[in-house]
Amino acid sequence: MDTGALAQILDDVLEYGGDYRIDSLDLGRQHEDASTAHISISSDDSELLARILMRLQVHGANQLDPGLAQLRPAPSDGVFPEDFYSTTNLDTQVRLDDRWIDVEQPEMDCGLVATAVGVRTVPVSDVRADDQVVCGASGVRVIMPVVEAKSAGDFGFMSSTVSSEKPQALLVRQIADTMRTVKASGKRILWVGGPAIVHTGAAPAMVKLVEAGFVDLLFAGNALATHDIESALYGTSLGVDLAMGSGVPHGHEHHIRAINCIRAEGSIAAAVESGLLTGGVMHAMVKAGKPFVLVGSVRDDGPLPDVYTDVIEGQRAMRAQLPNVGFAIMIATMLHSIATGNLLPASIPLVSIDINPATVTKLADRGSAQAIGIITDTGLFLEQLSRELLD
Amino acid sequence: MDTGALAQILDDVLEYGGDYRIDSLDLGRQHEDASTAHISISSDDSELLARILMRLQVHGANQLDPGLAQLRPAPSDGVFPEDFYSTTNLDTQVRLDDRWIDVEQPEMDCGLVATAVGVRTVPVSDVRADDQVVCGASGVRVIMPVVEAKSAGDFGFMSSTVSSEKPQALLVRQIADTMRTVKASGKRILWVGGPAIVHTGAAPAMVKLVEAGFVDLLFAGNALATHDIESALYGTSLGVDLAMGSGVPHGHEHHIRAINCIRAEGSIAAAVESGLLTGGVMHAMVKAGKPFVLVGSVRDDGPLPDVYTDVIEGQRAMRAQLPNVGFAIMIATMLHSIATGNLLPASIPLVSIDINPATVTKLADRGSAQAIGIITDTGLFLEQLSRELLD
Amino acid sequence: MDTGALAQILDDVLEYGGDYRIDSLDLGRQHEDASTAHISISSDDSELLARILMRLQVHGANQLDPGLAQLRPAPSDGVFPEDFYSTTNLDTQVRLDDRWIDVEQPEMDCGLVATAVGVRTVPVSDVRADDQVVCGASGVRVIMPVVEAKSAGDFGFMSSTVSSEKPQALLVRQIADTMRTVKASGKRILWVGGPAIVHTGAAPAMVKLVEAGFVDLLFAGNALATHDIESALYGTSLGVDLAMGSGVPHGHEHHIRAINCIRAEGSIAAAVESGLLTGGVMHAMVKAGKPFVLVGSVRDDGPLPDVYTDVIEGQRAMRAQLPNVGFAIMIATMLHSIATGNLLPASIPLVSIDINPATVTKLADRGSAQAIGIITDTGLFLEQLSRELLD
Amino acid sequence: MDTGALAQILDDVLEYGGDYRIDSLDLGRQHEDASTAHISISSDDSELLARILMRLQVHGANQLDPGLAQLRPAPSDGVFPEDFYSTTNLDTQVRLDDRWIDVEQPEMDCGLVATAVGVRTVPVSDVRADDQVVCGASGVRVIMPVVEAKSAGDFGFMSSTVSSEKPQALLVRQIADTMRTVKASGKRILWVGGPAIVHTGAAPAMVKLVEAGFVDLLFAGNALATHDIESALYGTSLGVDLAMGSGVPHGHEHHIRAINCIRAEGSIAAAVESGLLTGGVMHAMVKAGKPFVLVGSVRDDGPLPDVYTDVIEGQRAMRAQLPNVGFAIMIATMLHSIATGNLLPASIPLVSIDINPATVTKLADRGSAQAIGIITDTGLFLEQLSRELLD
Repeated sequence: MDTGALAQILDDVLEYGGDYRIDSLDLGRQHEDASTAHISISSDDSELLARILMRLQVHGANQLDPGLAQLRPAPSDGVFPEDFYSTTNLDTQVRLDDRWIDVEQPEMDCGLVATAVGVRTVPVSDVRADDQVVCGASGVRVIMPVVEAKSAGDFGFMSSTVSSEKPQALLVRQIADTMRTVKASGKRILWVGGPAIVHTGAAPAMVKLVEAGFVDLLFAGNALATHDIESALYGTSLGVDLAMGSGVPHGHEHHIRAINCIRAEGSIAAAVESGLLTGGVMHAMVKAGKPFVLVGSVRDDGPLPDVYTDVIEGQRAMRAQLPNVGFAIMIATMLHSIATGNLLPASIPLVSIDINPATVTKLADRGSAQAIGIITDTGLFLEQLSRELLD
Repeated sequence: MDTGALAQILDDVLEYGGDYRIDSLDLGRQHEDASTAHISISSDDSELLARILMRLQVHGANQLDPGLAQLRPAPSDGVFPEDFYSTTNLDTQVRLDDRWIDVEQPEMDCGLVATAVGVRTVPVSDVRADDQVVCGASGVRVIMPVVEAKSAGDFGFMSSTVSSEKPQALLVRQIADTMRTVKASGKRILWVGGPAIVHTGAAPAMVKLVEAGFVDLLFAGNALATHDIESALYGTSLGVDLAMGSGVPHGHEHHIRAINCIRAEGSIAAAVESGLLTGGVMHAMVKAGKPFVLVGSVRDDGPLPDVYTDVIEGQRAMRAQLPNVGFAIMIATMLHSIATGNLLPASIPLVSIDINPATVTKLADRGSAQAIGIITDTGLFLEQLSRELLD
Repeated sequence: MDTGALAQILDDVLEYGGDYRIDSLDLGRQHEDASTAHISISSDDSELLARILMRLQVHGANQLDPGLAQLRPAPSDGVFPEDFYSTTNLDTQVRLDDRWIDVEQPEMDCGLVATAVGVRTVPVSDVRADDQVVCGASGVRVIMPVVEAKSAGDFGFMSSTVSSEKPQALLVRQIADTMRTVKASGKRILWVGGPAIVHTGAAPAMVKLVEAGFVDLLFAGNALATHDIESALYGTSLGVDLAMGSGVPHGHEHHIRAINCIRAEGSIAAAVESGLLTGGVMHAMVKAGKPFVLVGSVRDDGPLPDVYTDVIEGQRAMRAQLPNVGFAIMIATMLHSIATGNLLPASIPLVSIDINPATVTKLADRGSAQAIGIITDTGLFLEQLSRELLD
Repeated sequence: MDTGALAQILDDVLEYGGDYRIDSLDLGRQHEDASTAHISISSDDSELLARILMRLQVHGANQLDPGLAQLRPAPSDGVFPEDFYSTTNLDTQVRLDDRWIDVEQPEMDCGLVATAVGVRTVPVSDVRADDQVVCGASGVRVIMPVVEAKSAGDFGFMSSTVSSEKPQALLVRQIADTMRTVKASGKRILWVGGPAIVHTGAAPAMVKLVEAGFVDLLFAGNALATHDIESALYGTSLGVDLAMGSGVPHGHEHHIRAINCIRAEGSIAAAVESGLLTGGVMHAMVKAGKPFVLVGSVRDDGPLPDVYTDVIEGQRAMRAQLPNVGFAIMIATMLHSIATGNLLPASIPLVSIDINPATVTKLADRGSAQAIGIITDTGLFLEQLSRELLD
């Protein structure tokens, strides 16, 4: 426990209308020591107290005596019991029958469902009537990720949140080192990308990274794939001012024509197969046999046939690809970065790259406390990363 | 034709790789006069020439002799013929059998399908195999909206694009006047809103506007409705820095609990009916019997039971509500503003209000040339608008 | 001492390369209790240790036994001794001959000069050879401003830094209440303003506030005064997109012509006297007999005859006006807000209003920890403030 | 004349309250042809008419029969006659006694003073009583810079204003090529820089460029030099979030201590001479014998002894260094970029690099129409530029 976390815990108790008493505080005398605090939380309202206790787990604070978990059946499909335990993205354990059971794949803002074989995190849209749902704050504890001294050496900028002020070249090198370490450990690297990858001219650098095996999985929307394919088919550079957040200009009919071509083929992979699509990031992913999940949004044209138009199905497809991901890098997309941040456990390091400070500060605001933001130029960043990894 | 449009036309010809010759130009000698230009466009490639001619219609430029429209059947469901005519959002006419037929409900980036009863704009996802689709650039003409002198007097700031520099109080008054005029003419006012309406404390002002009949239709996402309902159920103010684009912070379990409550009721209207939901914007819409369309995104939690999780179905639901809309006001949402801008014909005036310049400049970039952007504070703006309209 | 300050202190020690040991920590058991920590700081380098101890005073941390202050003569005009004590903006006391002496008018990044009559803060440009300058960290202590429970009730949003998320109307009311309280206590209100006051159409609202006595003192640059006067002389509205940070467009010759007119008169006051200047903010200040300090910048045209072209003399003129200021409000100017923040003691509350988040977050970054930022529209804000104070 | 310029001319006439009639317009039939327009401008007010005619020269539009220039004496020091001709930054000629005389060193928003030896641009602060000042719009013509086909090939991105959307690596290469061409032609390269050069870790790359002779002249403020020197003396990296526009954090006493050290030495050059200052950008400039002009601002601490504290004197010092500058590159500073843009003739190409879109769009707004903006990361940009030029 660090003093910052302590401050947040005390703030949250007051904000929820509870009160606290610090019973003991053993703040390691020197900075490398571990700290322990015992704090009594009180509230007149027992339901509120339960919610405060759940809330504090976001900061890694557990009850001294958590007791046993209470289970209650979901009242109907897609609905939790009223006092369901709302999850954090931390590693979590649930105590059933005096045994602590590890929860599979932590994810924030879900419920916990106990089955014969274990305890799963379940989003509210996926719960079924009569599923056994953990309720209240009893019998649940969370485990904060331990920042190892050694890994801190490798990836030291992780200690601060937004890193535009740090020497940029050093940051790129640290990310490259982390990627190599993750690959060496047999884990997968997840990329989340926006259309700026194409507009800033960084697609060739990213293609090289795909070919070299540094892109195991890609999450994106209709826009990245469309502009990548449009660029491959028509050679157009869209002239978008992405730094201004302008997104993708309309009116040029190239993009809707590119979408129509791929729809005629049936899928991006079919267009690669048929020889229609011969370049770009999506072509490289297909050729490398690496999976991608494209999820639509209400502003999409088309969309491409590979795009999940149902966002909840899209989330399920993303979730299904997360096992064995060891590192996530998010490039120039606010929507898909936050969507991915919502799904990722806190134990997976993630780096967000954007020229727009709002994107990179937002992940941390949304609960992805492990997010590192780097405010930089997408095009120059990817070129330098490719140089670090491949030269 | 103004000189700015002429410049854009010539630029586009060059950008697409064509060439031009100005045959005649009669630029009204004084500023109130109409202008006419005859320009010959040439290209070695006839397919490219057709695409240049389509492209120029975005600026209101038609062929001198457009000929007859060519129809070709759609090769399969969800696929246009390769050389389909890609629509603008201008009023459009198609010449079949020597008759000019008005196209229903113009929308950009769609195709034109001819049926026994007329010509419709159809998005690519909705075309069916063997639908008769207009192909090439022949037989289509567009009509630029005429800015009437009288309406310019009422709504004079429409001449510039982004208006943060104009006296703000005057702008609010002009929008209020426009709304009264639109209502008096029997047309409907469409609102498109983001969660900042709740976070800036502007929900009470908006509720008053709903009750007074100035909100006929609301397009939004899961976030606006969730935070509005959360605020009504729990009284929480989320403390989001929206000006920084931070969006909605996670981790507070209130929002997921609010969603679960409404899911248990079955719908927002059911929650109003049952007496669970007694305040806020969504409550006011239900009480006033006014429709709303909520469309989901990949970063949503829940979502609320009223939310379209399929974005293409969501677009269809939005499109179905557009007839008789006479004015659109978009408040603090980039995603839903652009989505709506994509669907709206150019003849419907629209105003976009946001503290973030990127949002308000983006609509125009995307082809919604009629968009007026005002960079201002959502909370103070809505309060002042409510004062102008209701006091 | 709150836990946040403790975290910052420990961070700073490590960042400077020192080490710490927490000897005792008595963190009030409940949230209203005061806290005390005793921390041992160590470093191999005694000069570094002195600098760490100075640095920690920024957070209100004093030495347990500060000893006596050391004085050393300034080696020459405009130069401090090498190990001079670098000031904070907190109330400060210096121990000379066993007596603690209050330092007059605290200001950050200055030196402390002991004279026969007391101890003054002196900026480096104003020190004279042989002035007796406090050196090292001994014999100096600082006093954190106490946030009184009562004033927190009146001005409760002071607890957070940037407040765009708070209901805007409430914030305006709180500022109005604070202004009335400050005036009732006989203190002066300092305004710091940028040209956006003119461009957003807020000048009439500000004129009313000047006439009603709520503007005792104005700090600004050449731009605010020039555009205010230009607007009064030529009726021009400049059409600047200030939200985009675009500043003041050139090329319109009105502004240089306005400057030339006032130069011909000799001063703004002379132009009011002669009847040339009959409206606007500067006219109102002259008529009300209230002082203003205009300081130039390298990008100025002209400038107006009242503008200090020497920035150090400008700082002196600003400093001379600070006594008895009880509240500072900064509107839409980054340069002059920071300049003023540099000069103000931490005990004077200050509010910064800007549509650009960068401006309002920057004051706090620069050490003006008491700064409250509100991200909002300048025009609507001033109109609402004037309504709150005057209606 | 292009159609865009024509549109602006007609707009300006209307905005000033005049009226126009297009007498003839010969718009080159093909895009490479030159165009000519004859337009009659009318106004009831002859003074207004003169001001409209001056204003139109900003767009390169001259009177068909300009007549002879009128001269009138300046009424006193620092004051122009009321109807003085307000300059553009275009190459300008004045007709005296039937001869067209070239004006030395064009600069916007100045007056024209005729002397025995020619005609000079004079800022209002430098005019002396009885100087002969050109008045009204007669007898003055401007010459638009001709964009040569060849140079367009070398530096083709000049055609658009803000270039974040263009492949970044290509942009860097084009700037490098331009710099080599400028140096080969014997002209000088002017750099204008902000402290982000230090904070993004780009100082070593810039030092290499200084040593290689690509930095002939540097304009900056106290901040760049202070943080560069602080970094050289103390090794501190300030941890500033510049992308957020946060500027330079206060409270760290390093910067004021660094300033004091250099003040003790007397100047930056003296500190290099004495061996105190052994690295960084300022050290490299001194060692290379290249001039720099540092101009202060009201928010400065110290300042360094080399800083002009009088901003008008600072402008004079900058102006004195401009002859033979052939290219200007501006890095991450809004204040000094605009200040320099104010002084530069339109014939000198300039590129502005910043991660903040506001900075790069502002130069053009202020009349520096030749400005090219690139929204990118300062650190990665300088590293890549140094690689292009030196490897």
